Amino acid sequence: MSVTAADGFVANGTACGIKPGGQPDLALVSTEDGRPVPAAAVFTPNLATAAPVEVSRTHLAQTGGRAAAVVLNSGNANAATGPDGRACAEETCAMVAHGVGCEAGEVLVCSTGLIGIPLPMAPLRRGVPAVVGGLGPKGGGAAANAILTTDTHAKEVAVHGDGFTVGGMAKGAAMLAPHLATMLAVLTTDVEVSPSDLHRALQSAARNSFNALSVDGCTSTNDTVIVLASGRRGPIGQDAFTDALTWACIDLAEQMAADAEGATKLARITVTGAMSDEEAQAAARKVADSLLVKCSLYGQDPYWGRVISELGSAGVGFDPELVSVAYGDEVVCRNGVAASHDPSLVADHLRQDHVTITADLGLGTGSGMVVTSDLTHAYVDENMRTS
Amino acid sequence: MSVTAADGFVANGTACGIKPGGQPDLALVSTEDGRPVPAAAVFTPNLATAAPVEVSRTHLAQTGGRAAAVVLNSGNANAATGPDGRACAEETCAMVAHGVGCEAGEVLVCSTGLIGIPLPMAPLRRGVPAVVGGLGPKGGGAAANAILTTDTHAKEVAVHGDGFTVGGMAKGAAMLAPHLATMLAVLTTDVEVSPSDLHRALQSAARNSFNALSVDGCTSTNDTVIVLASGRRGPIGQDAFTDALTWACIDLAEQMAADAEGATKLARITVTGAMSDEEAQAAARKVADSLLVKCSLYGQDPYWGRVISELGSAGVGFDPELVSVAYGDEVVCRNGVAASHDPSLVADHLRQDHVTITADLGLGTGSGMVVTSDLTHAYVDENMRTS
Repeated sequence: MSVTAADGFVANGTACGIKPGGQPDLALVSTEDGRPVPAAAVFTPNLATAAPVEVSRTHLAQTGGRAAAVVLNSGNANAATGPDGRACAEETCAMVAHGVGCEAGEVLVCSTGLIGIPLPMAPLRRGVPAVVGGLGPKGGGAAANAILTTDTHAKEVAVHGDGFTVGGMAKGAAMLAPHLATMLAVLTTDVEVSPSDLHRALQSAARNSFNALSVDGCTSTNDTVIVLASGRRGPIGQDAFTDALTWACIDLAEQMAADAEGATKLARITVTGAMSDEEAQAAARKVADSLLVKCSLYGQDPYWGRVISELGSAGVGFDPELVSVAYGDEVVCRNGVAASHDPSLVADHLRQDHVTITADLGLGTGSGMVVTSDLTHAYVDENMRTS
Repeated sequence: MSVTAADGFVANGTACGIKPGGQPDLALVSTEDGRPVPAAAVFTPNLATAAPVEVSRTHLAQTGGRAAAVVLNSGNANAATGPDGRACAEETCAMVAHGVGCEAGEVLVCSTGLIGIPLPMAPLRRGVPAVVGGLGPKGGGAAANAILTTDTHAKEVAVHGDGFTVGGMAKGAAMLAPHLATMLAVLTTDVEVSPSDLHRALQSAARNSFNALSVDGCTSTNDTVIVLASGRRGPIGQDAFTDALTWACIDLAEQMAADAEGATKLARITVTGAMSDEEAQAAARKVADSLLVKCSLYGQDPYWGRVISELGSAGVGFDPELVSVAYGDEVVCRNGVAASHDPSLVADHLRQDHVTITADLGLGTGSGMVVTSDLTHAYVDENMRTS
């Protein structure tokens, strides 16, 4: 149940000294033989792109979608570090390549931590040989531990398909440590799949998992999801593979959500009846990112007026006299006005850890969903100071 | 110093019983003789438009920009109330018209309060004759009191130009009571100005005052700014009038900001060097609405990485190697990387009540500014329950 669950991969994690407290901060995932295999990635759309994102994107483009290893550090984001930051990321890749026996361009690199601080290279120059030396098929757990920031536990997954496996690890600042605001995930599989099919499957899986999580509407400089495919178990159908990859990503995303220290509850915001799926998703995100809605969730307050107000300002097709809103199964607003309902059922629903809000725009067949958390005193506490 | 400061207007405010606690909740501003004068308004862009907004917009269109009175209630937003809500707003206008001696279509109407609750008409049927009966040139203060919700004090302004006056009143939920999330303002002037020139002046004034305030990124169902021009003092130049109107609106907007109970400080986010003014404004708003930036402000934490990250995901032209960021006068980031600076000067600046963050994108000549507040425990307290 880890990033080494799929056949053909080894991993390791160690403490190299980037984090002042001495916690694990360097992880490596590699093919067993150091040979490159099909690889795909999705990166943050943020234009303030961190150096490792730029380097990984360049490497993947140069190899046409192949990689032999992924190196990840926590404790420093290597973002807003300019050309020096890119040189640090390239040097890290070169050191890993020397260790595992591949080209530097066949190594992908991820960082997570504070923005704007030069990446210290001395710890990495000591750490990379050490982490390479300990690579093994049982090293997934150590790798998963070394990428954490303020996560309270490691996030790992293994999905076993019919004759194949998808494994993975992630760190999720998405909800629990938004001041770092980075999510990283590395997945592996033993399926035989072309780089282009692998990329298509990853895009679909990310859209239905990581991209449907929203905590604070902030998009990190470092977000990265990478998948490597060893091919050891041969080809399978694209749909079956995409399904397994999607389940693995959903599992990791839900582990991030469940580790949300600042939050007391999760809410699944579903919008149906929109003019398109895109409009439904945009409307769901507007509701999910609303400070007022998130405060209401914390207070267990069934004030659906805020939901209506957000839907009306989401920039999508909206008719105030067609919209309905439900908390759980109780419809509290129908055709834009208050609907008679049982307040005690709504109150019961809002007391739960998992809340669902469903809005039907009554216009079309588009639907979309976003998972969010409530806005709490603890969120403010966690984010008011980074040090 | 009120909505009756300009020559030709009378006002009054009273408690009619919409608010259960018996506080003032009904206000009326009218021309002295009940005759219509040039009028203009800007309304919320929210598509979940409240009934009074729909009715006021229709009345203004039908008269070609003329009105004799503005009636405002607090305690109920008359939003998400469907056709019944519009009938209530129309009936209120008709009652006012009967009282002041104009046509119903020459009355504009505003409401502020909770969304989704039918507007109780019995209090209004009693209250409108009472509020009409007490109209007078000294009634501006009573009117300003009757439109408040959780504001801690009334907001009034008078700007005296060369031979003319602009007066006004506002209630600002913008920062201090975001669960009502409505801002209303009524301004009057004794300038002689055509409806179209009046509208142009108001649009300009609102853009540079109310529209540059952002607390939580939420857009109310009821936001309305109205201006009436009696013409008593004759014509003046459009620029001089627009300037005076703008100063009046800025004054009211700053009063709203200063009444922000949940906030410990205000921040002026300025973006320069953008590809256009629109892009600068969008980037400033993205930074201003960021939960992470707002938590940092509360914690007086000079974490400029969050500012960079928001700028990079604002959907505007951005080059991470050209951007600079300053807190007050201290440049903390230059060309996208940490700049040497005096941390004690930054700390001193962040301790103040008024903080300025300036980001230069280094791309063009566009500039924009947004005023925001910090995200505090008190904000969460105020908004977690509406009752």
